[in-house]
Amino acid sequence: MRTLFTAEMSELADDLVTMSRHVESAITRASEALLTQNVELAQAVIADDAKLDDLEETVDERCVLLIAQQQPVGLDLRSIIASLRISASLERMGDLSQHVAEAARRAYPGSAIPAGHEEIVAGMAEAARKAAGEVVELLETRDLNVAAGIVADDDTLDKLHGEAYKALLADGYSGTAQETLDISLLARYFERFGDHAVGVSRRIVYLVTGDHTGDEARI
Amino acid sequence: MRTLFTAEMSELADDLVTMSRHVESAITRASEALLTQNVELAQAVIADDAKLDDLEETVDERCVLLIAQQQPVGLDLRSIIASLRISASLERMGDLSQHVAEAARRAYPGSAIPAGHEEIVAGMAEAARKAAGEVVELLETRDLNVAAGIVADDDTLDKLHGEAYKALLADGYSGTAQETLDISLLARYFERFGDHAVGVSRRIVYLVTGDHTGDEARI
Repeated sequence: MRTLFTAEMSELADDLVTMSRHVESAITRASEALLTQNVELAQAVIADDAKLDDLEETVDERCVLLIAQQQPVGLDLRSIIASLRISASLERMGDLSQHVAEAARRAYPGSAIPAGHEEIVAGMAEAARKAAGEVVELLETRDLNVAAGIVADDDTLDKLHGEAYKALLADGYSGTAQETLDISLLARYFERFGDHAVGVSRRIVYLVTGDHTGDEARI
Repeated sequence: MRTLFTAEMSELADDLVTMSRHVESAITRASEALLTQNVELAQAVIADDAKLDDLEETVDERCVLLIAQQQPVGLDLRSIIASLRISASLERMGDLSQHVAEAARRAYPGSAIPAGHEEIVAGMAEAARKAAGEVVELLETRDLNVAAGIVADDDTLDKLHGEAYKALLADGYSGTAQETLDISLLARYFERFGDHAVGVSRRIVYLVTGDHTGDEARI
């Protein structure tokens, strides 16, 4: 029974890695589509999001069945509950990548990025791609050093999010209302992407460091 | 044991109702603060959000302990997992209300709503308030007729979200970049609020209608 449980927990961990790789690919391609006005790539990201939704359902069902059949307690139970939440965050990161791709598609053949915002958006794209790659690595290795990188990327995203809004309000900004709308939302999508990456990271750190002695005693 | 379990499930349901009442109050007051430039009210909504975060933690801990101590299966287990997700959605609805209040506070003594958008924002505020009230009612009564109202409110929010963006792009729109930024984000906050209300509603409908026969057979 325990061997079966261990095997199933391992499959659950593999599913989360698969989801995170999907997210890394989605944000990387969505950003490229946005920065290079590549409408086919944008379209591909949008079409692929359904796969991530399916993966989330698979993970969630696996979690419920694992709890019902194995009746785990303590850290095992907390790992499964954490997996449910991680899958929800990854699914949301996929949605946000899709929104970036939708902005690229809508603006095509033009760019959704107002003049003067190119560097900020490129910086956000790079930080988001890096955070997504680190989420994959953290899920694969449980190496907590990776978590610090995710927090740093999120700080970068927050900073650039602020700069994107500041640049809108600066003298000399002359974007159209459509451009202002686009950059307002794009900056927010990237900023939220970073928040979710940190959320995933925190849940893994919580599990690995065993910062739940009090809980363990209670359940 | 079963009596204890029933009592604890009932407390869990009460906690979710408490959270939903908090959300209803938050979005109602945040909208009023936004529409009437009431900075004290905005400040109160922002300060109160921590209570909702605490409630979410309480609900989540109660769910984990219930699973560990009672080892529920079938519908009982699914109800607890659904409660975890409902608490996450309600917490997020609180965050979105807080963001509306923050926009009101930032713009004070001015308004965060560009000229010409007043009616659209008032409509979104009304639909969001109504949806939040129906979420309370649905959690209290499990009356599925209420769910249809939530879906209708979300449709209204989606429609007004589209209109808010269309009004930005219409001839004669003359908002500043700050106003365009504000309305872009405000419309998005209200639209996401509606999505979460529908998410909560779907989970309850799923539990009440018993549309999980296949799952029941398996766990």
